[in-house]
Amino acid sequence: MIRFAVLGHLAPTAGTFSLNDLPGGAGRMDVLCRCVTASLFLSHDMRRNVEVYLVLLGPPNPPATILFSGEQVRYLNPDERSSASLIKKALALPRGSLFRESTPGVFVRTGGLGELLAEHPFALLDESGEDIRQEATLPGTCLLSDHLNLTDSEQELVRDLPRISVGPLPLHADQAITVLLNETDRRAAGWT
Amino acid sequence: MIRFAVLGHLAPTAGTFSLNDLPGGAGRMDVLCRCVTASLFLSHDMRRNVEVYLVLLGPPNPPATILFSGEQVRYLNPDERSSASLIKKALALPRGSLFRESTPGVFVRTGGLGELLAEHPFALLDESGEDIRQEATLPGTCLLSDHLNLTDSEQELVRDLPRISVGPLPLHADQAITVLLNETDRRAAGWT
Repeated sequence: MIRFAVLGHLAPTAGTFSLNDLPGGAGRMDVLCRCVTASLFLSHDMRRNVEVYLVLLGPPNPPATILFSGEQVRYLNPDERSSASLIKKALALPRGSLFRESTPGVFVRTGGLGELLAEHPFALLDESGEDIRQEATLPGTCLLSDHLNLTDSEQELVRDLPRISVGPLPLHADQAITVLLNETDRRAAGWT
Repeated sequence: MIRFAVLGHLAPTAGTFSLNDLPGGAGRMDVLCRCVTASLFLSHDMRRNVEVYLVLLGPPNPPATILFSGEQVRYLNPDERSSASLIKKALALPRGSLFRESTPGVFVRTGGLGELLAEHPFALLDESGEDIRQEATLPGTCLLSDHLNLTDSEQELVRDLPRISVGPLPLHADQAITVLLNETDRRAAGWT
């Protein structure tokens, strides 16, 4: 299983946001939606071996974490509005500390980065990291941030994680996921 | 200058489509919008040396071509709705055979694939092509299709183009653009 977690620093934790204003009123939810698509979609197929965690840190009740399971997800299309709609449904549920399924393959719980770091051995996608092409083994679980840098307290939490980079220029989170999955695909297929 | 052209087989050629239904009523316009974002956006910056052509082949008056210039574009954000909104404005203008600017850095004209092929030396991004990592020189101008395969008449037009591939699995057009630009970035920066 390959896992991505993306921090949404302004992303709302209630399902009342408008699908017509994902960048503004929905706290750059568009960034997170593109990460879902980059993680789970191939052309006319889905990546069944990928999971993506969205860590929502905006008002009114942060943190919350949404999980999209490539193996189980249904009713998901590649456009931003489609994943945003499933996120809205997940946030409309009462939530506790255990993942609860809102629609097939989409789950929600309270908790944020701290909980995820305790569960999986993350690497941090970071411009200052080691080039993924030079890594003998690619990390199976990667953490990315949205358009904002990590906060001081987040930096403290990830201080000891390995850091990897996908290229010389700073990319959007979804673009970095696409490049990392391409490297994974190539290694699995024997393309070098 | 790096150029991408993307064929939108169902994409409408009038600006009357709804921004709330880009995949359905707007003929998979979401695919083309993600290609604009993949082509032109870096994290907190834009790729000023990239142009992207969208070839719209849906009703009512195909073909039409929209050009987004990374060097000149303004009022563009990374979300699908933002580029779709600029496409709507471009399609609302009367158009002729020469590019006419609708908003800063966005242009529209009649004409489709035939005209573009006469203007630029394209390579075709195709799963059966040569691996880009093995190419001594990357193509400066690439043609991609949306979620549909090339038609027979399009295949005839591109029969003699070089074909390149970005990886072993079939990707969405915007994902392929991201991977190709990553390879370009790496070579420009001396990452190999």
